[in-house]
Amino acid sequence: MTLMKHLQASDEFVGFYLIKELEVKQTNATPPKEYFDIVLCDSSGQLPAKLWDASSVDKETFFPMMLVKVQGLVQLYRERPQIKITRIRKAIPEDGVQVSDYIRSAPISPADLIHTIQQVIDSIENSDIKTIVSYCVAKVDDKLAHYPAAKTHHHAYFAGLAYHIVRMLELGEFICKQRPFLNPGLIKAGIILHDIAKPEEMTAQLGIVSEYSIQGKLIGHISMVSNWITEAAIKCDLDPDSNIILALQHMVLSHHNLGEWGSPVQPQLPEAVALHFIDSLDAKLQMVEDTLSATPETEEWTPMIKGLENKAIYRLKI
Amino acid sequence: MTLMKHLQASDEFVGFYLIKELEVKQTNATPPKEYFDIVLCDSSGQLPAKLWDASSVDKETFFPMMLVKVQGLVQLYRERPQIKITRIRKAIPEDGVQVSDYIRSAPISPADLIHTIQQVIDSIENSDIKTIVSYCVAKVDDKLAHYPAAKTHHHAYFAGLAYHIVRMLELGEFICKQRPFLNPGLIKAGIILHDIAKPEEMTAQLGIVSEYSIQGKLIGHISMVSNWITEAAIKCDLDPDSNIILALQHMVLSHHNLGEWGSPVQPQLPEAVALHFIDSLDAKLQMVEDTLSATPETEEWTPMIKGLENKAIYRLKI
Amino acid sequence: MTLMKHLQASDEFVGFYLIKELEVKQTNATPPKEYFDIVLCDSSGQLPAKLWDASSVDKETFFPMMLVKVQGLVQLYRERPQIKITRIRKAIPEDGVQVSDYIRSAPISPADLIHTIQQVIDSIENSDIKTIVSYCVAKVDDKLAHYPAAKTHHHAYFAGLAYHIVRMLELGEFICKQRPFLNPGLIKAGIILHDIAKPEEMTAQLGIVSEYSIQGKLIGHISMVSNWITEAAIKCDLDPDSNIILALQHMVLSHHNLGEWGSPVQPQLPEAVALHFIDSLDAKLQMVEDTLSATPETEEWTPMIKGLENKAIYRLKI
Amino acid sequence: MTLMKHLQASDEFVGFYLIKELEVKQTNATPPKEYFDIVLCDSSGQLPAKLWDASSVDKETFFPMMLVKVQGLVQLYRERPQIKITRIRKAIPEDGVQVSDYIRSAPISPADLIHTIQQVIDSIENSDIKTIVSYCVAKVDDKLAHYPAAKTHHHAYFAGLAYHIVRMLELGEFICKQRPFLNPGLIKAGIILHDIAKPEEMTAQLGIVSEYSIQGKLIGHISMVSNWITEAAIKCDLDPDSNIILALQHMVLSHHNLGEWGSPVQPQLPEAVALHFIDSLDAKLQMVEDTLSATPETEEWTPMIKGLENKAIYRLKI
Amino acid sequence: MTLMKHLQASDEFVGFYLIKELEVKQTNATPPKEYFDIVLCDSSGQLPAKLWDASSVDKETFFPMMLVKVQGLVQLYRERPQIKITRIRKAIPEDGVQVSDYIRSAPISPADLIHTIQQVIDSIENSDIKTIVSYCVAKVDDKLAHYPAAKTHHHAYFAGLAYHIVRMLELGEFICKQRPFLNPGLIKAGIILHDIAKPEEMTAQLGIVSEYSIQGKLIGHISMVSNWITEAAIKCDLDPDSNIILALQHMVLSHHNLGEWGSPVQPQLPEAVALHFIDSLDAKLQMVEDTLSATPETEEWTPMIKGLENKAIYRLKI
Amino acid sequence: MTLMKHLQASDEFVGFYLIKELEVKQTNATPPKEYFDIVLCDSSGQLPAKLWDASSVDKETFFPMMLVKVQGLVQLYRERPQIKITRIRKAIPEDGVQVSDYIRSAPISPADLIHTIQQVIDSIENSDIKTIVSYCVAKVDDKLAHYPAAKTHHHAYFAGLAYHIVRMLELGEFICKQRPFLNPGLIKAGIILHDIAKPEEMTAQLGIVSEYSIQGKLIGHISMVSNWITEAAIKCDLDPDSNIILALQHMVLSHHNLGEWGSPVQPQLPEAVALHFIDSLDAKLQMVEDTLSATPETEEWTPMIKGLENKAIYRLKI
Repeated sequence: MTLMKHLQASDEFVGFYLIKELEVKQTNATPPKEYFDIVLCDSSGQLPAKLWDASSVDKETFFPMMLVKVQGLVQLYRERPQIKITRIRKAIPEDGVQVSDYIRSAPISPADLIHTIQQVIDSIENSDIKTIVSYCVAKVDDKLAHYPAAKTHHHAYFAGLAYHIVRMLELGEFICKQRPFLNPGLIKAGIILHDIAKPEEMTAQLGIVSEYSIQGKLIGHISMVSNWITEAAIKCDLDPDSNIILALQHMVLSHHNLGEWGSPVQPQLPEAVALHFIDSLDAKLQMVEDTLSATPETEEWTPMIKGLENKAIYRLKI
Repeated sequence: MTLMKHLQASDEFVGFYLIKELEVKQTNATPPKEYFDIVLCDSSGQLPAKLWDASSVDKETFFPMMLVKVQGLVQLYRERPQIKITRIRKAIPEDGVQVSDYIRSAPISPADLIHTIQQVIDSIENSDIKTIVSYCVAKVDDKLAHYPAAKTHHHAYFAGLAYHIVRMLELGEFICKQRPFLNPGLIKAGIILHDIAKPEEMTAQLGIVSEYSIQGKLIGHISMVSNWITEAAIKCDLDPDSNIILALQHMVLSHHNLGEWGSPVQPQLPEAVALHFIDSLDAKLQMVEDTLSATPETEEWTPMIKGLENKAIYRLKI
Repeated sequence: MTLMKHLQASDEFVGFYLIKELEVKQTNATPPKEYFDIVLCDSSGQLPAKLWDASSVDKETFFPMMLVKVQGLVQLYRERPQIKITRIRKAIPEDGVQVSDYIRSAPISPADLIHTIQQVIDSIENSDIKTIVSYCVAKVDDKLAHYPAAKTHHHAYFAGLAYHIVRMLELGEFICKQRPFLNPGLIKAGIILHDIAKPEEMTAQLGIVSEYSIQGKLIGHISMVSNWITEAAIKCDLDPDSNIILALQHMVLSHHNLGEWGSPVQPQLPEAVALHFIDSLDAKLQMVEDTLSATPETEEWTPMIKGLENKAIYRLKI
Repeated sequence: MTLMKHLQASDEFVGFYLIKELEVKQTNATPPKEYFDIVLCDSSGQLPAKLWDASSVDKETFFPMMLVKVQGLVQLYRERPQIKITRIRKAIPEDGVQVSDYIRSAPISPADLIHTIQQVIDSIENSDIKTIVSYCVAKVDDKLAHYPAAKTHHHAYFAGLAYHIVRMLELGEFICKQRPFLNPGLIKAGIILHDIAKPEEMTAQLGIVSEYSIQGKLIGHISMVSNWITEAAIKCDLDPDSNIILALQHMVLSHHNLGEWGSPVQPQLPEAVALHFIDSLDAKLQMVEDTLSATPETEEWTPMIKGLENKAIYRLKI
Repeated sequence: MTLMKHLQASDEFVGFYLIKELEVKQTNATPPKEYFDIVLCDSSGQLPAKLWDASSVDKETFFPMMLVKVQGLVQLYRERPQIKITRIRKAIPEDGVQVSDYIRSAPISPADLIHTIQQVIDSIENSDIKTIVSYCVAKVDDKLAHYPAAKTHHHAYFAGLAYHIVRMLELGEFICKQRPFLNPGLIKAGIILHDIAKPEEMTAQLGIVSEYSIQGKLIGHISMVSNWITEAAIKCDLDPDSNIILALQHMVLSHHNLGEWGSPVQPQLPEAVALHFIDSLDAKLQMVEDTLSATPETEEWTPMIKGLENKAIYRLKI
Repeated sequence: MTLMKHLQASDEFVGFYLIKELEVKQTNATPPKEYFDIVLCDSSGQLPAKLWDASSVDKETFFPMMLVKVQGLVQLYRERPQIKITRIRKAIPEDGVQVSDYIRSAPISPADLIHTIQQVIDSIENSDIKTIVSYCVAKVDDKLAHYPAAKTHHHAYFAGLAYHIVRMLELGEFICKQRPFLNPGLIKAGIILHDIAKPEEMTAQLGIVSEYSIQGKLIGHISMVSNWITEAAIKCDLDPDSNIILALQHMVLSHHNLGEWGSPVQPQLPEAVALHFIDSLDAKLQMVEDTLSATPETEEWTPMIKGLENKAIYRLKI
């Protein structure tokens, strides 16, 4: 079965794929006819697809997040490949395919990621910090195991958030060794907490964000974490005005660095400065890596990357 | 006794004033001599002053926030009036002067302001909103009765914060009548809460801010209020994720309108939009009024006003 | 008859509506066929509509700003409702419908708005100010009774400009009572004059702006009013360099506050500061109110509002 | 007699100079003594100077804009030369010196500049344009012959405005030959009118601006010219809404190109685009030339030039 | 034969044109059909065109940059004219038409432009400057004779770059006469070198840029010229650290004036300031001229011009 | 001997220090007297100092970068400590003190830093990259062993540049292990080359930058390195248009990320993105570390740090 990423114009193919998006549209014909405007994906990438002449039965059969067997032809539309679906049916148990095999995922398993994060929490020496971190992690519960870190910018896939945290923890450990004046407990806590409200800021399924929650829009994940830390302190009988709470809230609130990027205060603790730049380095490099891997290798340039000043990345041969 | 505001170059005078600031400095003479660099004020305004040849006794006698009797001469220094102190002594009980008469204050008494605010709280129909507002107001306790609203921008005097709230409440009531689609309870709560953490963000005495607190710098008054609302909800057994908590936190967090002005989210409820513009209108007009009243009437132009794009205001005769 | 605002997907309906826009387009069929791309509206809102297979006769029959009787079906196109017209004819006198019933209008009648504005003019004590204001109002003549205040931003409907002025006058009166240092005559004049050239800046019919005039683009309504005030002074034998003319021109020229928002000078009179913030408060709240009322009540979020930093407004239930 | 520009540290000298600025200040001594803080200038440049121990008689003898004979010594203060005045007296008729020889002036005589401008006005073919230009030029009367073009930015000297206009007219003539699609009459008019209100925007004597006028601050020279054009049209019986008036007002209003640079509209006529860039080219090169000629030739770098992004200019030897 | 620029809705015509762009697309019909989406041009302008029902033979016959004989009909699509092709064939030698007659070109022949540039190089007195300029010009070889100066902004046609250089040289010569403190050799060199790497930054054929080169994107034409000057110095045995090399590299590097416009340093030599403003004046006026000439004379407004703050230009009749 | 960093108000002390800056100034006395305005430093920090009544002999005895023995008293001036020098003499050989002990230095010896850098160069596999890097490093010769990385921002001390490179190389090695898609040779080369022209951009002695060179101002270190790479290629017989040269020049040119920060192009290779963020992380954390270590431990807040949005860093006790 051909991977999405390898499909090229004129290819005819049969295979199992996931319906990531599906919209019923009408042609301009008179009278107009209904067709499906679909996005098909597997773990390697995604392509737009059309099912012309969608019947009433089709409209009650096919939905987003469903696995289907498709026979199709790759055409060029506005210089980009697009699938014309010639046959389609729902996958059945006998097909032996599973949704989890068809979505983009972090390269490390959720279980391993969660295990690593838990180990780091256990290693935090200051018990108050550990208590707050544990409380907040418990709030998102099993969502930490599978949520993406963002809608499109970076780590936008299954377990992307946990993966982002783990890579940052590795980097944070290295930096703390290089610079002993930093407090490792604060660095660890800041990394784990900085985006911990993302699962409540967005609604996601299988690593795909469908929309922002009301809380996400009206409060924002940065202030949500700050509120959670206050909640954690009160619920765990810690002083909400203590220096540790202050430090954790400051790190979370300032981690976007500038007001126009969403931070109401700017970093003023060494660990807050470190957190922002560790986050930037990891997120930006992941954007590059994710975009390159989702771009067919025949393309020299990736699409423009919004988080990198709208620049595209070039595959230079040296 | 001449009011500060009326002192002009060449005036010789005797009177009681408050030492607002006092710094011991040294002349460039060889060897250097010590003198006092002072700011004297009364309720009408303030002027810089010098006490040349300050003795060791003087250094142990005079301090900021002390009432003194001063004999002096007004000189011009860099085209601005400056007092040369010829005699100075501490005020004594027999002088019958009180500090409170020598500071700049809101034009309404603290008791009346607090009474008005309390009445408005009582008039809020929704009991959850009322509970949260009462809790947060109780946190700043008697500080609400005398704190300024800002260090220098606007309402920077005794009871300035309460005065700002009361004028906004009047305006808010008018706007709610003009536009019935607004929720009056939210408007009232938003107005009272929006700057309620200022007394914890700054350290002030007699309406004069000396510095920002650590919390003020690392968290900022906007996020502090958001955290207080979470605290209030938990302590008062309300759901911290309810729509009312969401609305109150959103209004407070968004009331500076833009990220670069310190708001991590932008107004997205009608009442949040109203709150921002009611706050702007009141604060900007108060800046104009305060600056005009602190500028000698012989001056056609006020000093530049930072909060008004660094523009000065002109006294046009028509 | 169903209001536009209540039409939903799958509804079949018959009713009278106004053709707000009409464009003849061609399908991609071979050979292409002509159809009408229409916007139908009534006083509650508007929807896109298609008349497939428009005949030559149709092309000479139907035009924008015409009342028609329509039989149609509501379909979904790109997740938004769109009308498929099945029958259409021009309204005739016997139908008893009038265009004025089918357009969006200010909630107060033009006659009442004009009456209020005239009363305020009469109440201005300074006769020179009154003369200038009357002259400028006379220049736009009966257009003041029906022009919108803007193309899309706010008050974009029949008599929107007069309505904006009247609400601002109410607010201005309140502010002048709250702050007696403001000159009420200047405030009234500034409010009435600030947008008075808008009817010459834009071409509008029934409250719908079709385009900007050449003067509107090359001079702009702000500088037009300034020129009109000079004209008024000369024609009415007032000194064009007097303080009153200066004050009025300054208020108009500075009312957008910043150079990048179109004001060549920034507010430097107390009344100019007041004018800008009164204008902002009224315009922004009206944007919220107008957008909410034009959004079906089944929608939680309004569309994004350009004048509010591209934010949407949320209908929170509390 | 040594030119200001050639005075160097340790030089002792005697000569006639103009007192450009004079302020009475006090030393920090106890009791403080009065001294003069002076700026002395001649046509080649200027230097700060001090007269220590200024007597009461001195204070009634010496004033700005007065010619004096000075004996002095050049010292270094903060690495910059400063004159210590050892003797000073007012110039008397017998000295045979005239103020006009001691101020910085345009390199062409005012009479010649005015003659050139008048010739260009006479050469404008369209009589309406000629009428408007003549009216506005007449308003500033003989001030055109001697006013500077700006306070400090460029052409800040005697007849600087007329000189700026004449150089721009030369450049405009060249551009019109190079690009025949431009209307030479509009270009000429735009160049003469664009800054014609500057003499009313600023108060200047001998080419030195002391302050901005109230009109200059509240209306600004750009809008003042627009108002003058309206006035000219009415007084000369031309239609204030004609295309010619529109074009002239547009060119003046848009010649700063951007809102943040003071233009309420942006250039939308070819001649308006030309006007802005002709103005820029002339003003920026003059800043370079003026600054270089006012910088001692022993200095490799000029001071920073505000109008050139705060960059200094380097004298490169090649 | 009708010029593109004069074709209007409903016109039927036959003529020779150049296929500037050609894309094979599919209709929304079921099954979809293929058609050509074409841009036809001649030297006067260009129009979009459709060839419905393109056959397999057609797909192997017609390509961009090919001359064709077309019979067509002008229709309106979205209020803009669009050609429906009814017959089309390739031009043959017997037709006597040449591609060079159908493209937009500079109004002066390439040979004359190159001749002028060469004469200016010969007139540079300083032999080191002349050597560097000649070396860099030689690098782009015959491309200088036909390359455009930009993709769309200005001088976007055959020999546009050479034309831009020649007009700037004329202007530079005029400015050097007006301001003798400028070094004419540096001005000439700066003008010729400032965009000399554009032919290596972009890929163009017949004056039409199809894309940017890898070097163009990763290094940019400004830094490319700087590197070329270093190369020229080494290859011609000049000191790469000499003042002349420094001056030339500085002028090229700074000619966009600001960092956000692509210049890593800002102009700090008089000739660098002159170069930037000469370039601006010529480029902006050419944008106006090019856009006006490509806009049908029946249109009062040109399209918006990106390089002029997205403003359109108006054809005012006076 | 007391370290600078530990001197507090009222301390009397004797010790050896380095004169970092020395300026002769005059008091305001009549006649004015000369005194020395000095900055004294040792490896722990620096303080301003005054030598009142400097004699002619003193002026010929003491100069910057000289070691002196000082007896002094610490006074407070504008709330900051300042030394009043009571006795001073030059250090003599018998004192056994060396300049290198009195300057701020990187915590690793220059020899070790250079050794590490050389080892990394040796480890670059691609011989062309290695050649270019070696050539450029050789150009700055022994300056690499002792130059600072900046004038004030970060690593502003002896061997600061080499130290910055070495820490970045450690971080780069870690990142390359974490993300195998990055080319380690390019990362190493980019890190070593990115600031390699700084020693030619600035003039420094003992790690203290006194000024920028002409090349530094007119070309800038970023473009200088680009030119050097071209030079290296030609001198070493490599193709200056090869992909490796392109990659190295791109990385250097883009490492400031944005045009307004000095980069003429933005990062478009994965390694260029990595280089920018590795540089940021290291530079920002070093700013924090350097500022903290130069701030007396009795101070809770450091001074504001320009490179961190003008924020100060707080010493939080947890």
